[in-house]
Amino acid sequence: MAATKSVLKLIGVPQSTCTTRLLIVFAEKDLEFSLYQPDLANGEQKRKPHTDKHPFGVIPVLEDGDFRIFESRAIARYLAVKYHDRGSPLVPPVGDTKAWALFEQWASVELSHFDPFASVTYVQKFINPKNGTPSDESAVTTAIKILGQKLDVMDGILNKQAYMGGETFSLVDVFYMPTMNGLFLAGEGHLITSRIHLDDWWKRLTARPSWKKVLDAYTQQK
Amino acid sequence: MAATKSVLKLIGVPQSTCTTRLLIVFAEKDLEFSLYQPDLANGEQKRKPHTDKHPFGVIPVLEDGDFRIFESRAIARYLAVKYHDRGSPLVPPVGDTKAWALFEQWASVELSHFDPFASVTYVQKFINPKNGTPSDESAVTTAIKILGQKLDVMDGILNKQAYMGGETFSLVDVFYMPTMNGLFLAGEGHLITSRIHLDDWWKRLTARPSWKKVLDAYTQQK
Repeated sequence: MAATKSVLKLIGVPQSTCTTRLLIVFAEKDLEFSLYQPDLANGEQKRKPHTDKHPFGVIPVLEDGDFRIFESRAIARYLAVKYHDRGSPLVPPVGDTKAWALFEQWASVELSHFDPFASVTYVQKFINPKNGTPSDESAVTTAIKILGQKLDVMDGILNKQAYMGGETFSLVDVFYMPTMNGLFLAGEGHLITSRIHLDDWWKRLTARPSWKKVLDAYTQQK
Repeated sequence: MAATKSVLKLIGVPQSTCTTRLLIVFAEKDLEFSLYQPDLANGEQKRKPHTDKHPFGVIPVLEDGDFRIFESRAIARYLAVKYHDRGSPLVPPVGDTKAWALFEQWASVELSHFDPFASVTYVQKFINPKNGTPSDESAVTTAIKILGQKLDVMDGILNKQAYMGGETFSLVDVFYMPTMNGLFLAGEGHLITSRIHLDDWWKRLTARPSWKKVLDAYTQQK
């Protein structure tokens, strides 16, 4: 009997922060998958059949046999739960209501208190210049000002716990990694390195084999 | 023996969209709770002891005996899981991996594709004028333009499923309700009423007893 072939198919591009989020999960879980890269420059993601897979016309999308799901953090949760006992646990055990509540609390901090400001900084200071698109300087100034205040609080959180989701490495940390890296690409890495607990945390995250593996894949695709 | 007293304590104010999100959950579950309202005007939420409860100095926070949790959507998930068999289910059964994956997919759509643009519109067009704070007209124009495109997609989604989380009313719908109502307060309700499926969905949500109960509480507090 032939070995079971992987049925996990990721639709995305390694240069995208949201796709990178899932490449880290695949690496942490040592999962086989195939990657289909839509032609973003030609707007393939904005047309059928892609919009049948993601109504907002963006990436990534995961196909697991005939099960399909979009939104990177939702896909990451799905993979972390389905493959809980493989590689890094990444999420609490199913059924541990309080542990999941705290996981969701810290996950919400990433999406509500960090991502919007970090993403604006990354897009306006790295992506737009690379694409020759004008940047909104006022939006960057506002975002960086708020981001600084948020990072001060995050530094205080990391003074009390080892990781952004609690005492162990988890999906919450993975959620941060691509956009946090984007701050460095945007020339704003000092926002991290100047804060002692954030700097220490970031060094531990980027030393993980999964990050090195994903960074290699990203560099090859550039 | 005396009846068991409720130990659920919510720290928040009914005028806040994030607090309202939880008032709807309490109403859907018919749960008893006490409400502690910090003096926001005097910045009570920005100082200890509140910042020991929420490091970012915002509301709401839930205390369930000696268990404490912040971030409204995380609190809502916690309550919906803990009281799954009481009132409206609101979330899938624990252990149904695919159902949860789709729940998280639609929950992420609310937080990534709707809330940022709707919140800017609500704050700049309703909250700021009420407080005598200048509004950023350019930010509103951009937010409403993107919001229109997002609402077109959401209208298409609601042409295929009855609720924003699938075929049944769920926490995903609850997540939308306070900020969606904020669009009406901001004078932008036409963005909803002009789209047939969104309009129908919004009418069904606002006809729920839970919404009427919360709206009464909100009106009494104004």
